[in-house]
Amino acid sequence: METCGRVIINTGNGKGKTTAALGTAFRTLGHGGRVCVIQFLKGQGQYGERVMAGKTENLDWFICGKGFVFKKDNIDEDREVARQGFEIAREKVLSDQYDLIILDEITYLPLYDFLDVTEIVKLIQNKPKRLSLILTGRDAVPELIAVADTVTVMEPLKHAYENGIKAQKGIEF
Amino acid sequence: METCGRVIINTGNGKGKTTAALGTAFRTLGHGGRVCVIQFLKGQGQYGERVMAGKTENLDWFICGKGFVFKKDNIDEDREVARQGFEIAREKVLSDQYDLIILDEITYLPLYDFLDVTEIVKLIQNKPKRLSLILTGRDAVPELIAVADTVTVMEPLKHAYENGIKAQKGIEF
Repeated sequence: METCGRVIINTGNGKGKTTAALGTAFRTLGHGGRVCVIQFLKGQGQYGERVMAGKTENLDWFICGKGFVFKKDNIDEDREVARQGFEIAREKVLSDQYDLIILDEITYLPLYDFLDVTEIVKLIQNKPKRLSLILTGRDAVPELIAVADTVTVMEPLKHAYENGIKAQKGIEF
Repeated sequence: METCGRVIINTGNGKGKTTAALGTAFRTLGHGGRVCVIQFLKGQGQYGERVMAGKTENLDWFICGKGFVFKKDNIDEDREVARQGFEIAREKVLSDQYDLIILDEITYLPLYDFLDVTEIVKLIQNKPKRLSLILTGRDAVPELIAVADTVTVMEPLKHAYENGIKAQKGIEF
């Protein structure tokens, strides 16, 4: 695929940040492009998209998290896992093997002080020209917004969870 | 898949309405669910997701549009195509063959006066219990918002097009 790569951020408190990135992956794959997904923070688990990824050609998938960080007791371990994930991201970005790389939940790394945002900005600035990046996660910091060409804020107008409906197989995971 | 179906709307002027629905399709397929996508308004064209759909099991895809409606001269023909699309949607929804049906760009049907919104509402209310629906498109009318359990508004904070970057293969189509 000959394209000029983009830098896209999906942020906000609503649904659709990760799924919109996955839908774009589906689109890129359809045009014969190669896609890599690196998931920060989300731990192991039976996400439907991971099952599909295992069956899909030209799609590489890395899980670099231990689950969302709510407790402070393992923070050093969480930081270490996140930093290892970022090293994988750096290697994949600079490899020039991909048309699209999704850095899922990466916005949390600077928020949790796992990584200085300048390291992410530097990597974005050094990416191969053809490579598009999609960064997802809440509360993207201004330094990330500044280097993106497209930023979408997913805002919840109505959310099932508020009505007591639980996260559901096939929809939320 | 045994689930209790949801009614989700992705609306707003930002990116990600259709791609978030496609990402959810990817998720549902991963869990072994069956998915149907019905695209209103969007005409024929080399969308990457359509190429992928042709290669993907348990995913049915219907194109029920002639391209976005900008000119008024063929409005009767556009209305007829949209109404035929809605008949397919009705048949697929009531067939109880699917876990997820995506009604892509359906919000425009009542906006353009192609279909009374009460017909869409009635279909949603009569859907099989296990079936989840995702409706996409700008300016979802209040009658649709009312019957959804989850509504996300995709808002553009920064949009590449404004900076002169054109719609791009693998990303926007």
